[in-house]
Amino acid sequence: MILALPLPERLLIARIAAAVRHSRTARSPKLPKVGSPSLVTGIGDDCGILRIHAGHEILVTTDFSLEGVHFRREWHSPESIGHRCLARGLSDVAAMGGAPVAAFLSLATPARTSQNWIDRFLDGFLKLAGEFGVTLAGGDTAESSAGILADIVVLGSVPKGKALLRSGARPGDRIYVTGALGISAATLDLLYSGRKLSSAIFSRHFFPAPRVSEAVALRARSIPSSMIDLSDGLSTDLSHICEASGVGANIWAGAIPVAQLGSRPKAVELKHALHGGEDYELLFTAAERRHVPTRIAGTPVTCIGEVTRGKQMFLVCDNGSRSILRSQGWEHFR
Amino acid sequence: MILALPLPERLLIARIAAAVRHSRTARSPKLPKVGSPSLVTGIGDDCGILRIHAGHEILVTTDFSLEGVHFRREWHSPESIGHRCLARGLSDVAAMGGAPVAAFLSLATPARTSQNWIDRFLDGFLKLAGEFGVTLAGGDTAESSAGILADIVVLGSVPKGKALLRSGARPGDRIYVTGALGISAATLDLLYSGRKLSSAIFSRHFFPAPRVSEAVALRARSIPSSMIDLSDGLSTDLSHICEASGVGANIWAGAIPVAQLGSRPKAVELKHALHGGEDYELLFTAAERRHVPTRIAGTPVTCIGEVTRGKQMFLVCDNGSRSILRSQGWEHFR
Repeated sequence: MILALPLPERLLIARIAAAVRHSRTARSPKLPKVGSPSLVTGIGDDCGILRIHAGHEILVTTDFSLEGVHFRREWHSPESIGHRCLARGLSDVAAMGGAPVAAFLSLATPARTSQNWIDRFLDGFLKLAGEFGVTLAGGDTAESSAGILADIVVLGSVPKGKALLRSGARPGDRIYVTGALGISAATLDLLYSGRKLSSAIFSRHFFPAPRVSEAVALRARSIPSSMIDLSDGLSTDLSHICEASGVGANIWAGAIPVAQLGSRPKAVELKHALHGGEDYELLFTAAERRHVPTRIAGTPVTCIGEVTRGKQMFLVCDNGSRSILRSQGWEHFR
Repeated sequence: MILALPLPERLLIARIAAAVRHSRTARSPKLPKVGSPSLVTGIGDDCGILRIHAGHEILVTTDFSLEGVHFRREWHSPESIGHRCLARGLSDVAAMGGAPVAAFLSLATPARTSQNWIDRFLDGFLKLAGEFGVTLAGGDTAESSAGILADIVVLGSVPKGKALLRSGARPGDRIYVTGALGISAATLDLLYSGRKLSSAIFSRHFFPAPRVSEAVALRARSIPSSMIDLSDGLSTDLSHICEASGVGANIWAGAIPVAQLGSRPKAVELKHALHGGEDYELLFTAAERRHVPTRIAGTPVTCIGEVTRGKQMFLVCDNGSRSILRSQGWEHFR
């Protein structure tokens, strides 16, 4: 079983480079690369080199994917782990209204990790990269003493001065989300209870689709006053916008698009939509008088509340009663 | 002992941001920032934003620093670990002839890690960042289930088309190194044997100085035909240049600048200089007729061999005998 043995570092890097070359010939990017940076040198030197087109700024984000913290090998297939690893970074670039360009992957695996696991991880990673025209342009490899550790860097491009920040929300703005919320957290609840789940039905958890096209379209039409992606949960990510903008918010409980699972109609509850992380939808604000379409790039957009002058967040029920909304989403070290 | 408790993630990020602000007011960069990119937005949004000056390309490198693999807490102080973490990335940017601009730090610590450890780690990291005018512009934090895990991203800037690659060595070129080699590996040998070592005397191991000024000066004078930094050891890093350039090499054993430790004259041996990693000196090639100064930016430069037409590397002794030089430097998974 030579094929089950881990690879020496140089061979592993060569294998990743070959997988990248193979995936390049197969890919059909969803996004046109007009005005975006281009890759000059990728894997195989001390640094990757990117060339930036005039009038653009570069976006940089890094995100850990750690075994036991962000995924479990008994719950998540290697393809899902590779996909989710990259999706986190793509979603951060989307949150700024940017187009992703290149990714760098730092991957540490225990000595006993099979080549098959690594190949399947790369399959999941590179398939998603190909969908968005992103090149895996470098990274680092190491042996891990405990568990699989990945850190993803994604670089993106945005026209100069046009990045959508967390700090632009103003009192009176309306608050919007794309898609539906809560599937990922509800899926985790089912996994914790010991269920075996089909990755097809629960694909928003296992293979989340970062809202890149939606974000680029929103930015191009200058709709959002502020934007963030829902990685830590609505209550936590909204609090980031409120803090950065110096505002508060009323969230209308009845308006929140709670996701539906056809086979398990009660699996997703309001708590999952309010506090569950890893939905990778977009949360944005827009001026009250700004027309916001009900769909953007094919994805539903729902108004769920309003920005207020106070510094607190409230959950407003259909009967008008309101309660303080505390950020209870995912936070490490808690 | 509230101060010994770990910080919730949001407080940790706020603490890092405060440390960055504090270090900015104190720093005095060694490098002028002429024509380099500038940071638009740092910690506190989904991505950092960099603006690139016309005529420049951006360099990107990532490097793990994992407990038990790259450092041990019983050997390395928190300041040394923070310094070495950033130094790895700075050295990669130097290897391309670039000037570092911004760093992104992903840091995962076990729940029991003290705030004091993190503060001292950041002290070491930010002191070195300040020396090179590098801003810590973002990153990620997480709880680690085993050991301290850091991944550093460094972005640099280089004039368009001027990056020094591994692939430019040509037969007949001479091979050079900066500084002296072997101290880091010799220090590790002493640490493995159980010695307690002063970080002042062994500072090239505990607080390595990446050769950024030297690299920028070499590139500005168009001296190197190829360049790499000595992170994995001379024999391994030279093999990277040979493979990328499709050439071989003769290394003159008697010419290698083996480092000297004043108090332990026999501590550093030829094997440490040939195969020991983490010296973070520069290894470069230059055309035979190219004048190469004996010092660059104050650091000695030594000619140690020549590039050959064959694909193999040889070690040539003073008496003319030669043996195959195999890459025996640090490689993970071996």
